[in-house]
Amino acid sequence: MAKAAAGGEPEVIRDKAAMRAWSRSRRAEGKTVVLVPTMGFLHDGHLSLVSAAAAVAGPVAVVVSIYVNPSQFAPTEDLATYPSDLAGDLRKLASTGAVHAVFNPPDLYVRGSAGSGASGGAVSCLEAVAAGGDGHETWVRVERLEKGLCGASRPVFFRGVATVVAKLFNVVEPDVAVFGKKDYQQWRLICRMVRDLDFAIEIIGSEIVREADGLAMSSRNVHLSHEEREKALSISRSLVNARTAALNGNNAAKQIKNQIVHTLTEAGGRVDYVEIVEQESLAPVEMIDRPVVICVAAWFGKVRLLDNIEICTRS
Amino acid sequence: MAKAAAGGEPEVIRDKAAMRAWSRSRRAEGKTVVLVPTMGFLHDGHLSLVSAAAAVAGPVAVVVSIYVNPSQFAPTEDLATYPSDLAGDLRKLASTGAVHAVFNPPDLYVRGSAGSGASGGAVSCLEAVAAGGDGHETWVRVERLEKGLCGASRPVFFRGVATVVAKLFNVVEPDVAVFGKKDYQQWRLICRMVRDLDFAIEIIGSEIVREADGLAMSSRNVHLSHEEREKALSISRSLVNARTAALNGNNAAKQIKNQIVHTLTEAGGRVDYVEIVEQESLAPVEMIDRPVVICVAAWFGKVRLLDNIEICTRS
Repeated sequence: MAKAAAGGEPEVIRDKAAMRAWSRSRRAEGKTVVLVPTMGFLHDGHLSLVSAAAAVAGPVAVVVSIYVNPSQFAPTEDLATYPSDLAGDLRKLASTGAVHAVFNPPDLYVRGSAGSGASGGAVSCLEAVAAGGDGHETWVRVERLEKGLCGASRPVFFRGVATVVAKLFNVVEPDVAVFGKKDYQQWRLICRMVRDLDFAIEIIGSEIVREADGLAMSSRNVHLSHEEREKALSISRSLVNARTAALNGNNAAKQIKNQIVHTLTEAGGRVDYVEIVEQESLAPVEMIDRPVVICVAAWFGKVRLLDNIEICTRS
Repeated sequence: MAKAAAGGEPEVIRDKAAMRAWSRSRRAEGKTVVLVPTMGFLHDGHLSLVSAAAAVAGPVAVVVSIYVNPSQFAPTEDLATYPSDLAGDLRKLASTGAVHAVFNPPDLYVRGSAGSGASGGAVSCLEAVAAGGDGHETWVRVERLEKGLCGASRPVFFRGVATVVAKLFNVVEPDVAVFGKKDYQQWRLICRMVRDLDFAIEIIGSEIVREADGLAMSSRNVHLSHEEREKALSISRSLVNARTAALNGNNAAKQIKNQIVHTLTEAGGRVDYVEIVEQESLAPVEMIDRPVVICVAAWFGKVRLLDNIEICTRS
């Protein structure tokens, strides 16, 4: 890449204050600070976010954060088995030559003395352990966009995402942040949070990166057996077919949705949701007569996979 | 004051981007940007916050924001009658010689097309008018501290306060912000929000300023009749008596609380709450054997008044 970091070895920063000082010092040098938030176990999808960051106009300072956020996992979910490989991640990031710092904090939350600090019914892996008493209790809620799609089956997920991203924004103080459109609802929700809370940050949505066979890249793909992975190809295949159908004039959302559910189920998947929604509001549509996105979440074996496809038709 | 603004006339800024540019430019000059958030109709209490801002070490740039935040009022509350006097406010601020900019935005929220965007049961004056559809939907909740005391009778209040303060922080980007301890729960809640969301802002809590007769200064005092105002003096009197009693060893919270309720009721007030709580957690105590604050909210006529007193005993 043209704008390589000198030497290609990113500086690893673990402390919040040091991270903020680093960013401020880069900005004082006239650089645009660009943040790529990740939970690690990086794949080519993440590296494409780094490329998008490096491509921001003018001199840039690219920070990749690696932090598995406990507050977006419910206690029943896969926090404990979420894959990690810090050494491998650092190697991959160094190989891009485009990353100037890696922010890898041991923890981002104030842990309380004991007990559950939860209220309002939602409990995450953060509160289940030690956010009681005087621990973390401030949450950012994007009240409409956090509902529906992934929010329906993961009630604490977007509360945790919005909150940790707000924290990362306040620690790193980036000018630009890059999010993958594979997590479509997350990307739209972060855009809305930035607008509503007046963060001085430009958000870039970066396109989905797929394996050669079409599977959307995900850190969780590593948990798929060979057979499950074959079956999971039905997701991207059914989405491409749906888009073709819609562009050919078959624009009744219900019919397209049923076709996708049928294909996934036949392949052995368990559908969490298939929804056809407006691109910004994520409100369900009946006819595909405006810019929409088809969002899918489905289980193959013990792995829940996400994918989506944007469709822009002329009505 | 020693650190007067040149000429004493603060610059009035109404636009978010201009406000942020102003702050960044002051910081680039090596100044500490200090924010004093207000809802206007300024009195000597507010001016004491300005003094606290001007007293921050080193060269400072003091910004006073004047904005009546609709999202912290319920539709049943006094948003429509909340007093305002921008010309008078600007005169008072200019007379201090210590204010460099006044941020007075016409609106801080994205208004939606129509309908109520409310969810979760809480509806403020913002949502009641036009936050539906694609309008504002992001809220900062400080889940434990927003409950109890004022939060019990004003369920949308602290959600609105935390959210508008987060917005002001992101627009003004201050290094320091000053809040009055008269709104004790608000001050503690903002401190907690800053800690939990990693805002790079130091919060100063400034002492209550009282009229000569002891009444805590408030923009709402103007609505008190002469007679109501006389009766309202029972608040500060009962708080001072309670502290004296506690310091003399009468440290059973229930007994002290009952005495205050009795005094206020006898004076013709209607008590919303009298609570004796820990200073940081705002958790109720049974014995005054650690640093506590006695918080009072009571109605005199149509005016709801707040007051409090901190007590530090040695156990």
